[in-house]
Amino acid sequence: MQEIIRELIQPSDSKIVLCVLDGLGGLPFEGKTELETASTPNLDGLARSGACGLHIPVARGITPGSGPSHLGLFGYDPLKYEIGRGVLEALGLGIELTPRDVAIRGNFATVKYDGVRPVIIDRRGGRIPTEENRRIASRIREKINTIDGVKVSITSGMEHRFALVLTFPEPLPFGADDISDTDPQKEGKSPLRPTARRKEAEVVASVAEKFINLAADIIRDEKAANYLLLRGFSLYPGLSPFSEAYGLKAATTAAYPMYRGVAKLVGMELLEVADTSTKSEVETLKRHFKEFDFFYFHVKKTDSYGEDGNYWGKVKVIEEFDGFIPEILSLNPDVLVVTGDHSTPAVMKAHSWHPVPFLLHSSYTRGGGSLGFSERECLKGELGIFRATDVMTLILSHSRRLNKFGA
Amino acid sequence: MQEIIRELIQPSDSKIVLCVLDGLGGLPFEGKTELETASTPNLDGLARSGACGLHIPVARGITPGSGPSHLGLFGYDPLKYEIGRGVLEALGLGIELTPRDVAIRGNFATVKYDGVRPVIIDRRGGRIPTEENRRIASRIREKINTIDGVKVSITSGMEHRFALVLTFPEPLPFGADDISDTDPQKEGKSPLRPTARRKEAEVVASVAEKFINLAADIIRDEKAANYLLLRGFSLYPGLSPFSEAYGLKAATTAAYPMYRGVAKLVGMELLEVADTSTKSEVETLKRHFKEFDFFYFHVKKTDSYGEDGNYWGKVKVIEEFDGFIPEILSLNPDVLVVTGDHSTPAVMKAHSWHPVPFLLHSSYTRGGGSLGFSERECLKGELGIFRATDVMTLILSHSRRLNKFGA
Repeated sequence: MQEIIRELIQPSDSKIVLCVLDGLGGLPFEGKTELETASTPNLDGLARSGACGLHIPVARGITPGSGPSHLGLFGYDPLKYEIGRGVLEALGLGIELTPRDVAIRGNFATVKYDGVRPVIIDRRGGRIPTEENRRIASRIREKINTIDGVKVSITSGMEHRFALVLTFPEPLPFGADDISDTDPQKEGKSPLRPTARRKEAEVVASVAEKFINLAADIIRDEKAANYLLLRGFSLYPGLSPFSEAYGLKAATTAAYPMYRGVAKLVGMELLEVADTSTKSEVETLKRHFKEFDFFYFHVKKTDSYGEDGNYWGKVKVIEEFDGFIPEILSLNPDVLVVTGDHSTPAVMKAHSWHPVPFLLHSSYTRGGGSLGFSERECLKGELGIFRATDVMTLILSHSRRLNKFGA
Repeated sequence: MQEIIRELIQPSDSKIVLCVLDGLGGLPFEGKTELETASTPNLDGLARSGACGLHIPVARGITPGSGPSHLGLFGYDPLKYEIGRGVLEALGLGIELTPRDVAIRGNFATVKYDGVRPVIIDRRGGRIPTEENRRIASRIREKINTIDGVKVSITSGMEHRFALVLTFPEPLPFGADDISDTDPQKEGKSPLRPTARRKEAEVVASVAEKFINLAADIIRDEKAANYLLLRGFSLYPGLSPFSEAYGLKAATTAAYPMYRGVAKLVGMELLEVADTSTKSEVETLKRHFKEFDFFYFHVKKTDSYGEDGNYWGKVKVIEEFDGFIPEILSLNPDVLVVTGDHSTPAVMKAHSWHPVPFLLHSSYTRGGGSLGFSERECLKGELGIFRATDVMTLILSHSRRLNKFGA
């Protein structure tokens, strides 16, 4: 689709706001989903006049992680493109990546030495406090900077987790991240060597192995975190930026690092937000509204409460968002979309496969199907059930940014 | 999709029952379809709380045979995989096949000899009675056992039809069944030679030709059935078994040979059933419920009555099945699906292309869309219209057997 769209793009000064309420879709609790329980007079009004439907993030019955579900919404087929686990970890820690980087998930582990051979006692290094992690990581950082001309950066995460980024002098070829994990997945075993599964990955595997050996020497005297395990070697995914793919100057008001990271991957500008509140995002949106064509607005807490099983917390976040709709509408966007990236029903305390309610407000909708904004009302909407990869095409057409296909 | 699913499978002790009412979908007669006329209080209740929709067996507007429609339901794309006509014929006669077999549809024909050249007078050998067929086939069986080390088995079907299975010492390569039919499709012509259309098929074609000549000599003195025509040469399709594809220990309660055959092809255990009644299948299901993860339950008569144009007979079979729902539910399956493999509207007296009503009962459905179980009510359900190849993914997700896709 992206290839076809690229041919059809026409210039326009229309404005687009895509609001993603993370994990928006739900399941009934005492007969009603979170969205059905929430009092959302503004969204209901938009649903009645707008184009509603439900999108399938990846495929029917497939529960997506945040990476694939955002790729889909942004029009990059998640069955074709992949954000590797290392990249996702790095994005989550606010690291900016380029095509010269390999990103790796790491964790500190506890080993004892059987002669020179390390044997894993605790794969999670006693889940050391994050503060301890920072101290140990900085010990490594002080001593290791580059290996064989490759820049090495370790960044602490929560507890025992960290991200490792290897920055090469040149962009890396496809397959350079095809390297096995070093975590043997079992205590009592020795860590594995990072092994290249194809020729293109050999240099990367060799640098990673040297790093492990050097770093393990440095932290050998630590009690709980005296070793490192690496997994999820991954390259920067080669996504064409929004400007090229859609002719859109795009920005995000998202506050959480991972979502800012995903936005960065598709070439969006990262706007400053005061804090993680919806209010701050709205303020950022207003402040920069003139500067960009497209805004990706992200509400995290619908998902967090869903994962916690906090039905009423999720209801409240939805209601709070609804309260900001008049303020967003006062900016007069040509297209306003409200949807989720996937479902996170509070009754399941987890992401799920269920289709996600979708609402598109513009001057070019038929409307009149849905009586409000909910999973069941969206079923009656003019868009029906469709794959998330269609979202960007729908947005572009409703904002009059696509020419006719063929004559 | 099967490749993706394989990566996501997680162990579970959930139980799944897939009930296929053959040819379930219908068309209105005096305003109502068979399913709308049938009194189905139990299915209606499940439809109200469950996930409903309609599936498309192969593609929009395509009327499927039983082979493709079952492949689709079981998650094997019928546009990619094929159960050859010879294999289908053999399955229908209760023959078990292996990768060493070539299965062929045959029929007895009447020829007169023009010198040594046979000329076809009746392509269907006067549609001899099945008993006559058995007698003639056993004459051939007595004389021909193996040809060039290949085991030859002829099995009588109805009237003039039979199945021929050639069993080779080794599994056959792809393409070994690419052999032209010997039926010239017209009386007054000579039968054609079985001709290999590629190298891999040459040995098979040669054995088949020898068989025809030897067998024709044996039955030369028969009046009506003194010759044989072969068509639909086909190999055992290489379908990955349910255990590998989905991590499911699967079994069927189906009673009719062809459906047991299709189940066998995907590695299901064939359970003993007393007779072809729904009652017997329910008893078998109950008896073995603890032993398997997945049960394929099959009701044949909805289709048979549909093909006969017996609207009220089909209605009655549906009502009878509805009566067994409480007994099936008392087993407490995690997922219960009720659907058809295709539509067989009594008013058409034939299979048809119409989407097939689908109902999924589990703890993880939104429900509330459909007011009952019928073609038109299923349209309002949360699943919408979808391809049959999504059925297994939906079943696996609702039975919590799939991990998240990506992070």
